[in-house]
Amino acid sequence: MKVTVSRKAHFNAAHRLYRKDWSHEKNEEIFGLCNNPNFHGHNYELIVSVTGEIDQETGYVIDMKILKDIIKFEVEDTFDHKNLNIEVPEFKELNPTAENIVVVIYNKLKPKLSSHLDLEVVLYETPRNFVKYSGE
Amino acid sequence: MKVTVSRKAHFNAAHRLYRKDWSHEKNEEIFGLCNNPNFHGHNYELIVSVTGEIDQETGYVIDMKILKDIIKFEVEDTFDHKNLNIEVPEFKELNPTAENIVVVIYNKLKPKLSSHLDLEVVLYETPRNFVKYSGE
Amino acid sequence: MKVTVSRKAHFNAAHRLYRKDWSHEKNEEIFGLCNNPNFHGHNYELIVSVTGEIDQETGYVIDMKILKDIIKFEVEDTFDHKNLNIEVPEFKELNPTAENIVVVIYNKLKPKLSSHLDLEVVLYETPRNFVKYSGE
Amino acid sequence: MKVTVSRKAHFNAAHRLYRKDWSHEKNEEIFGLCNNPNFHGHNYELIVSVTGEIDQETGYVIDMKILKDIIKFEVEDTFDHKNLNIEVPEFKELNPTAENIVVVIYNKLKPKLSSHLDLEVVLYETPRNFVKYSGE
Amino acid sequence: MKVTVSRKAHFNAAHRLYRKDWSHEKNEEIFGLCNNPNFHGHNYELIVSVTGEIDQETGYVIDMKILKDIIKFEVEDTFDHKNLNIEVPEFKELNPTAENIVVVIYNKLKPKLSSHLDLEVVLYETPRNFVKYSGE
Amino acid sequence: MKVTVSRKAHFNAAHRLYRKDWSHEKNEEIFGLCNNPNFHGHNYELIVSVTGEIDQETGYVIDMKILKDIIKFEVEDTFDHKNLNIEVPEFKELNPTAENIVVVIYNKLKPKLSSHLDLEVVLYETPRNFVKYSGE
Repeated sequence: MKVTVSRKAHFNAAHRLYRKDWSHEKNEEIFGLCNNPNFHGHNYELIVSVTGEIDQETGYVIDMKILKDIIKFEVEDTFDHKNLNIEVPEFKELNPTAENIVVVIYNKLKPKLSSHLDLEVVLYETPRNFVKYSGE
Repeated sequence: MKVTVSRKAHFNAAHRLYRKDWSHEKNEEIFGLCNNPNFHGHNYELIVSVTGEIDQETGYVIDMKILKDIIKFEVEDTFDHKNLNIEVPEFKELNPTAENIVVVIYNKLKPKLSSHLDLEVVLYETPRNFVKYSGE
Repeated sequence: MKVTVSRKAHFNAAHRLYRKDWSHEKNEEIFGLCNNPNFHGHNYELIVSVTGEIDQETGYVIDMKILKDIIKFEVEDTFDHKNLNIEVPEFKELNPTAENIVVVIYNKLKPKLSSHLDLEVVLYETPRNFVKYSGE
Repeated sequence: MKVTVSRKAHFNAAHRLYRKDWSHEKNEEIFGLCNNPNFHGHNYELIVSVTGEIDQETGYVIDMKILKDIIKFEVEDTFDHKNLNIEVPEFKELNPTAENIVVVIYNKLKPKLSSHLDLEVVLYETPRNFVKYSGE
Repeated sequence: MKVTVSRKAHFNAAHRLYRKDWSHEKNEEIFGLCNNPNFHGHNYELIVSVTGEIDQETGYVIDMKILKDIIKFEVEDTFDHKNLNIEVPEFKELNPTAENIVVVIYNKLKPKLSSHLDLEVVLYETPRNFVKYSGE
Repeated sequence: MKVTVSRKAHFNAAHRLYRKDWSHEKNEEIFGLCNNPNFHGHNYELIVSVTGEIDQETGYVIDMKILKDIIKFEVEDTFDHKNLNIEVPEFKELNPTAENIVVVIYNKLKPKLSSHLDLEVVLYETPRNFVKYSGE
């Protein structure tokens, strides 16, 4: 009996979409308002879903308190109230689009979970825009 | 790395569930209140999800502004503030159940997207009732 | 100790904004898309709030089950799955704008409540547009 | 054309997480606050999703009114305003974790649906914690 | 310039509505399902609103972190994962209706705030039922 | 008959809380994480509420399309995807706390509305923190 357990979390951050190796004109053309050199920001909402067998002893797939702590340590403590481009090492050379952020979060969380658990991460950049990654 | 990018949109429309080739009694029996000949209506909420590889140059699966414009042109401009039965050609002979509407929307959006992108459409008819179609 | 007790309800309906005594051009100019002669519709969300003293015996301002039944009988049963312009007598000569609908609902509910209770009605026409009336 | 039809429902219940065959200390260690012997409770939100072919006659996968009635009879009438540990027979010997509750709900609903329909059940224990089961 | 600052919080608890001095029949008649002697429960959502002048130095009415801590200490730590009837002293002789709970919360928070600040508390018992108290 | 008409809008922005005339230590002590010199950001959600008499001709308090355009021109076009501290002139010398932002927005919108209309502005900085100002 495989059950998926999901936990919501959130962080607030500033970012800017651009490539250093592109001209200002090309950055403007592709990223528009998101290329503002003074940054803009979002309340990112995160849904972390873990799929696995129910432990017959505890009735848990994973203890939600443990999952909550992993998300806090790996994501909230390092991303919340930060400037993603400047202060989060993963985005030094990687454009912090929602797509790239969700992959980075997945890659930070996956090694912290037992290998027999599947992981899926959903990231809301705004209430109307969101992305999903499950390692495929 | 396949990521799913989702965009919410919405439209308000009137509709009526019935079949011309059925008796009034049979329409009443099957569709109940939804068969009101004077129509009723909904705020339809739409979630359009596109799955594909992240473009290594831009960090996008698809530019959200382009996806937003496709949804606006194909769905919002033709469905919003309309009577689905009378004014939307696809429902001239097709009963506008949520199931049929979501398939029509999928079929309008799919040809506008690159063929290597997968599409899934979720349509909320009310906050408690919704449907999903992904072309299978 | 005055406490306000609120209950959410909802109904789906079709409507059209126009005045019979105006030309088609003036209706188009003022009401735009909302003047579609074939109607459009909404999922109306309703919040009914009743303010009064807590009954020291029961701990209730008003029994929520009774309030729920009043809303069902006065509003949901007469508005849900209806065409407001054609089937709801109050809108035979009254333009069913959100403002006029919320006043009509207030006037239907007020006489059903004890005279020492205050009433406020909020009506969501869409998730982004809503109106409020409290009899002032 | 396979479409998924979803319906939201809800129930309020008290529960306690613990195993009779464990010491008080071990229950405290594993279940923490959730092991309160006087119980605590939740507003459980439920999303029941049914996947199948659209019936070409009605335009329905399943009549939403029928699905609503099945959920009411099988889940709401037996779980709402109940103490899960004491009053719901399935949890006499089974710890009512969200994971176990969602499996019990799935197992109650599945036999009531046509065998050619697939079922998935999502259960929100709080707005931030939820689980999903689809019989796999 | 008076501004209102609001903070959301939540707690999960079990409760039962009844009066010891009433017969079982009268409790059943007035409180119905809510009188279940084995308790039921809710995810209570709380909105605490504080109104006052903006401090010209800080730009704050009240530091949100301080407000968050007051709510945590006064409400969440004493109500969360508790049985209100048995474990919260205020309800030993007071029926824990939503109305009585919101007054108790107001009375716990008010003395912790500067006397020149106004307080309003909103308590959601379910997503459809909520109450409000502002000390009047 | 005075009715309140509300419209939701939103913008994404970066900001930093600090005072130039304070030491780094004092800024850290008072504003904590919000004082990050590299900025952080939010999806600000806005609810603009206008109260006045219903126009007997149109059934409107104010045409929602006009209100929507005023909000777009005065708030969204100047705040969205901006760094509030650097790019919005009102915050050159004013700390962009939620309280100060909501007063600035009120002061921008009020002169654009007929003088017989009352205005209230609610600003969500996060889903859990929000502020309200009505000019008092």
